Amino acid sequence: MSPHLAEFFDFLRFPSISTDSRHRDDVRRCGEFLANKCRSMGLGAELHETPGHPILVARSTPKPGRPTVLIYGHYDVQPVDPVSEWATPPFEPTLVGDKIYARGATDNKGQHFAHLLGVEETLKAHGDLPVNVIFLIEGEEEIGSPNLAPFLATHRDLLKSDVCAVSDTGMIGPGIPTMTYGLRGIACLEFKIHGPVRDLHSGVYGGAVPNPATMVSRIIASLHDDQGRIRIPGFYDRVVPLESWEREMWASLPDGDAATLEETGAPGLWGEAGYTSLERRWGRPTAEVNGIGGGYQGEGSKTVIGREAMAKLSFRLVPDQNPQEILELAAAHLQSVCPPSCRIEVELGHWGPAYVMDPHSPYGKAAQRALTRAFSGEPRLIREGGSIPIIQAIKDTLGVDSLLLGLALPDCQIHSPNENFTVTNFEAGIRLNQALLEELAG
Amino acid sequence: MSPHLAEFFDFLRFPSISTDSRHRDDVRRCGEFLANKCRSMGLGAELHETPGHPILVARSTPKPGRPTVLIYGHYDVQPVDPVSEWATPPFEPTLVGDKIYARGATDNKGQHFAHLLGVEETLKAHGDLPVNVIFLIEGEEEIGSPNLAPFLATHRDLLKSDVCAVSDTGMIGPGIPTMTYGLRGIACLEFKIHGPVRDLHSGVYGGAVPNPATMVSRIIASLHDDQGRIRIPGFYDRVVPLESWEREMWASLPDGDAATLEETGAPGLWGEAGYTSLERRWGRPTAEVNGIGGGYQGEGSKTVIGREAMAKLSFRLVPDQNPQEILELAAAHLQSVCPPSCRIEVELGHWGPAYVMDPHSPYGKAAQRALTRAFSGEPRLIREGGSIPIIQAIKDTLGVDSLLLGLALPDCQIHSPNENFTVTNFEAGIRLNQALLEELAG
Repeated sequence: MSPHLAEFFDFLRFPSISTDSRHRDDVRRCGEFLANKCRSMGLGAELHETPGHPILVARSTPKPGRPTVLIYGHYDVQPVDPVSEWATPPFEPTLVGDKIYARGATDNKGQHFAHLLGVEETLKAHGDLPVNVIFLIEGEEEIGSPNLAPFLATHRDLLKSDVCAVSDTGMIGPGIPTMTYGLRGIACLEFKIHGPVRDLHSGVYGGAVPNPATMVSRIIASLHDDQGRIRIPGFYDRVVPLESWEREMWASLPDGDAATLEETGAPGLWGEAGYTSLERRWGRPTAEVNGIGGGYQGEGSKTVIGREAMAKLSFRLVPDQNPQEILELAAAHLQSVCPPSCRIEVELGHWGPAYVMDPHSPYGKAAQRALTRAFSGEPRLIREGGSIPIIQAIKDTLGVDSLLLGLALPDCQIHSPNENFTVTNFEAGIRLNQALLEELAG
Repeated sequence: MSPHLAEFFDFLRFPSISTDSRHRDDVRRCGEFLANKCRSMGLGAELHETPGHPILVARSTPKPGRPTVLIYGHYDVQPVDPVSEWATPPFEPTLVGDKIYARGATDNKGQHFAHLLGVEETLKAHGDLPVNVIFLIEGEEEIGSPNLAPFLATHRDLLKSDVCAVSDTGMIGPGIPTMTYGLRGIACLEFKIHGPVRDLHSGVYGGAVPNPATMVSRIIASLHDDQGRIRIPGFYDRVVPLESWEREMWASLPDGDAATLEETGAPGLWGEAGYTSLERRWGRPTAEVNGIGGGYQGEGSKTVIGREAMAKLSFRLVPDQNPQEILELAAAHLQSVCPPSCRIEVELGHWGPAYVMDPHSPYGKAAQRALTRAFSGEPRLIREGGSIPIIQAIKDTLGVDSLLLGLALPDCQIHSPNENFTVTNFEAGIRLNQALLEELAG
């Protein structure tokens, strides 16, 4: 086994599960391992305390006249349940063929460790880097990065940089260089429909009183028309239409409709008319019900009219939708369609705007050249449907764009049993880092 | 305290909760108490074993040439939870003013015990009854009478009678004689919507796959039009329209809209356009959601597209709707509105037809005369919205109609803490029994 792999395996052995307080010390030890690794490479490294798990900042000695590149990652990992479904112990990294099986192998230890090793090799070979580098590697990404945004705000000077690079997204297929230039935003709310003051006998009162479960359904049904278009007035007002190069690029990718069907196992597709699956997932906003409940849900039947029913909604947003405005529009719509026979209560939840950067900007083009050098062929330019709030926080607080250069393969099983990372992509990640820093140096 | 009341209190002290196996012996002891009471009155009484709680049959010595009246009741009671909300212990009957507080006071111990005492007094005074009487008093009504219908079928000869009388329904107000001549039927089903094979990330896939929680809502929304009319094709085909005397009678009762609002505390009414609350509750069919669920219902948010969602529906039926046909029509409608992107699974549940008897028949008129004698004024003729399956079983198996002469007052709190029965109605029940048997003797 190469020294690189042996060291990576040591890193993977830390059960740095950030959500589990029993692993609190493991998370810290993992951060310390990383800090020591950075110091051994010649970087100045400090593990910063937070109310939660520590944040590592490691930097090369800054030299004037060159851009500073911030490289973000996270050393915490997801829990491993159900552990019985793992073919190998999640914290005993195991090499099978080209695949390294371990929790955190892809998400995100392997991806940022490759960047670290790239910097280490460059420093060994040349005693210098083409740019100034700052590693920002947190231990709380899997629990929503509660302390990172405040840390950015209080360490603006320390983290002052020109561009950010993040390898924490996906490649559309093995060997296919992929750059993610956009993420959807999110806005959540929950609403409750109150009807009678207590559960009623559906025989005695049925037919004459509002049934909250019926009403919550009728209100949800008002969210979409039969073409899958969202009917909240004003919802699409600020939506930036997809550009033709984007639609052409995405149409050239492997069939997204077939992939969506295969990956989800749904009997069919359903969405906004006039758009492909990839366009619906990456470039169009949504209104999804994340949960609904009311009345009696146990076994058998209970002839009751429940006193209330509720639904949790989340909206995925695209540029230039404003999350707070969307929440206001949604709340107003819900209020307007709730019949006067019921009382509605709307509670607004968390939100974050969509993120998009210009892949044709100088930094964007540099990143694409680096991808072509690390893999081969023209990089595919995609967006992703999820949200990475920290990318927006970096933009808002530090004022820089993020280059999302993912190394995760479609079957890497992140957040699931048997998470894995290929040695191929691990090594490609090292080359990607070297190429990227050179290209960004301009 | 009168000997009547003292004896009634003894009866109320048995915690004959049929659903709670810890009270199994209490239920039996309560049945034995009642059997002994019947024997002491001079009736032949037998406690019949069933797979559950025993059924009491007690009868006067049959004499030829007179009608036989079956009097139905149940000696089991509802649970008492939450017991902390009772002002007095539920099985320590307590007299406060005119009200006797105890679990089972109205439902149904007080109502059938009054009939028993009526028969006892008549026998004491005259040594005979004007009709043959059979008491059929079960111990499983509150758990759905699972053993009564089979018992009827195997004891047809024992229970052969000309008409049945039941005091287990409500009066529209204190002192107002009330006869219930109809009950709604019921038909239940549950359906599940299956979408993706597992819960999905609503960011990664949202917008392109069917969301079962959304679909279950859209399907439920298809059950009613904006006028509250049910949209299942064929649903109303066999519905017998309300007769004008019924609508006039019900319009003359205390304001049903106001009562429905007050009793339920709902912000407003909702139902089929063109009908009053009482008509909607008593004489029109319904489609109610008794339960709905899907996705994440816990605290906070989880941005998930759940793999499935479900709803439990029940339909209240009126003459001459056929419950099995309604279930077929409903299942066909659900199938037809489920989008092809989902899979729907429909499971049919229990059902029973509506019951209606002619209140202007000779027995119906005799019952009304008895009500006028026990209370005063013209009896109000109503239906009720709930279902009493045993009434239909008596009709189907024994071939006789039931006279529903309720003694329950609107604020009697059956099934709730602080159930109560007034001494006034208890004594009126005794007089009602005596008048009824005389009037039925014709």
